[in-house]
Amino acid sequence: MLVLVAGSTRTARIEGISAAGAAPSLLAHTPGADLEIVTYGKVVWGSVVPVSPSGCPTPAVVTRAARELQGCQVVAVDAGMAGPTAAPTLELARQPGRDVREVRAVPEAEAIFETARSFGESLPDRRVWIGETTPGGTTTALGVLSALGERAAVSSSMADNPLALKERVVEEGLAASDLGPGGAAGDPVAALEAVGDPVLAVVAGLLAGARTTGTPVTLAGGTQLAAAAALARHAGVEGSVSLATTVFVDEDPSASIRELAADLDLSLTVTDPEFDRAGDPALSAYPDGEAKEGVGMGGMLARVDDSGLSMAALRKQVSAVTDRLETDRE
Amino acid sequence: MLVLVAGSTRTARIEGISAAGAAPSLLAHTPGADLEIVTYGKVVWGSVVPVSPSGCPTPAVVTRAARELQGCQVVAVDAGMAGPTAAPTLELARQPGRDVREVRAVPEAEAIFETARSFGESLPDRRVWIGETTPGGTTTALGVLSALGERAAVSSSMADNPLALKERVVEEGLAASDLGPGGAAGDPVAALEAVGDPVLAVVAGLLAGARTTGTPVTLAGGTQLAAAAALARHAGVEGSVSLATTVFVDEDPSASIRELAADLDLSLTVTDPEFDRAGDPALSAYPDGEAKEGVGMGGMLARVDDSGLSMAALRKQVSAVTDRLETDRE
Repeated sequence: MLVLVAGSTRTARIEGISAAGAAPSLLAHTPGADLEIVTYGKVVWGSVVPVSPSGCPTPAVVTRAARELQGCQVVAVDAGMAGPTAAPTLELARQPGRDVREVRAVPEAEAIFETARSFGESLPDRRVWIGETTPGGTTTALGVLSALGERAAVSSSMADNPLALKERVVEEGLAASDLGPGGAAGDPVAALEAVGDPVLAVVAGLLAGARTTGTPVTLAGGTQLAAAAALARHAGVEGSVSLATTVFVDEDPSASIRELAADLDLSLTVTDPEFDRAGDPALSAYPDGEAKEGVGMGGMLARVDDSGLSMAALRKQVSAVTDRLETDRE
Repeated sequence: MLVLVAGSTRTARIEGISAAGAAPSLLAHTPGADLEIVTYGKVVWGSVVPVSPSGCPTPAVVTRAARELQGCQVVAVDAGMAGPTAAPTLELARQPGRDVREVRAVPEAEAIFETARSFGESLPDRRVWIGETTPGGTTTALGVLSALGERAAVSSSMADNPLALKERVVEEGLAASDLGPGGAAGDPVAALEAVGDPVLAVVAGLLAGARTTGTPVTLAGGTQLAAAAALARHAGVEGSVSLATTVFVDEDPSASIRELAADLDLSLTVTDPEFDRAGDPALSAYPDGEAKEGVGMGGMLARVDDSGLSMAALRKQVSAVTDRLETDRE
């Protein structure tokens, strides 16, 4: 079962911070459209397929392609989505996160975390994958890692990670909450309230709940999922947790994903879909450093790989999904 | 893809009208628990597995068992649910239906029908099954059939169908809306407003939309699904529509399902899971006339049958699902 947590943070509206949409005005629609692509293989209520400003398609097409190849139940969670979706969702947070530079970015962090933990405890006990779609989410991840005193490493959906901007925003966010780096160590709710987003609260809660009942969890993503794992570790969650990400995150020096995984005792899987061999111009943006990860992509690639299917088959299916989306758009 | 439409009508609160719950106070929880059983194989936020007053388990266990045997994507639709659910849902109606004896049972019928039609048009074009879970829904089905001037036949989740009570309630409902039998012929929205429920509005809209774009539809259920088909026919929907139901509905003389299907030009499939051969006391209530159908059961049985799996395998899986639910309860 893949639990896809979709939400938003007003932090994404800061100019230059997110590429999860062709234009800033479309960012609010990206999580909803991502869920529609994974659920239906098409965009339903939005008319726009999420692409980066340069046209790189959303990782949702990769997750959809993986589902079409081998089937995978998806449970979509609304963790404060700012736009509509035709995908069925379970609402675990009502409001988008605020700009982290406000005093409290997620005032309801504790309630969201506890609701998600309770739901995580009741998940069936077969393996659960958890992914996310959150424009602006790498900045809140950086914020949470900083507040907890963990390695302040973070990836980006852009080829050129606007790291200095993210660091400045996080610094302002921590200052607005009277916190310094490490000031919320051992207090994940405080970190979430100050500089997090509702998606991180939900993912951390789900992970904590699922581990309580022994459900094996693979976090399917990059630094945002690692930040959620950090929150869970600071909430006292022990034992085995897996992180499955893409080679694009692994090759991003600003992500330091291997070091993050080691710090947090996460067993790391890195999968390379070899998109440079796809011959599909849309996919060549990935090896150039765009998009990189999201919507459960890293976990779904690992799952395809584990099942013995080839990455060539996956690439072919990704192209088929992309072609169908293009046709729908025309 | 199985679209499961869950909702409620206050008509279910009329004493003696529904058996979709062990006690009247639990009826509001039945649709949510049904969706949880189909989605997760267990009851999550409700603590109670829906059973009839005599202990017959909900048809949701049959649909779940069929999914476990052969996989089937489920899209759950909230069509005015009165209770909570941990299953992800797409909300197409906000309010439970009112008691049909009020002037207007579904004041927003037109908007609900049109929203569902629009969603139905955008469904992927592979085969779609549509099922429902609606305590009290056979009474609203009788109401709609009467208002349209169609055969006033209807089944029940009870072994003894309280037909006289249902007829009296419908008569009062039509009178309250200044309608006689057949008074809403050709005007499905008027029938829904007067004596329908939001689930019927959604199912009829989905069917109309899906047929517009050529998506093959199988209505998975009994007289409630037939009533939705009648609404769609009166909305001008032509062409092929399938109805897949259980032998328990077929053997119910008050349902007249063959005649209804013929009237409405529905190609009928009847499947017998041979629960009398199950050796499972919980299932023996079905051949005795309880539950009969619901939560997509008839369609899922037909799908299992089509795939070449045996009904013995299905029965074994149903018992396994039931056992797991029992264990969770203890």
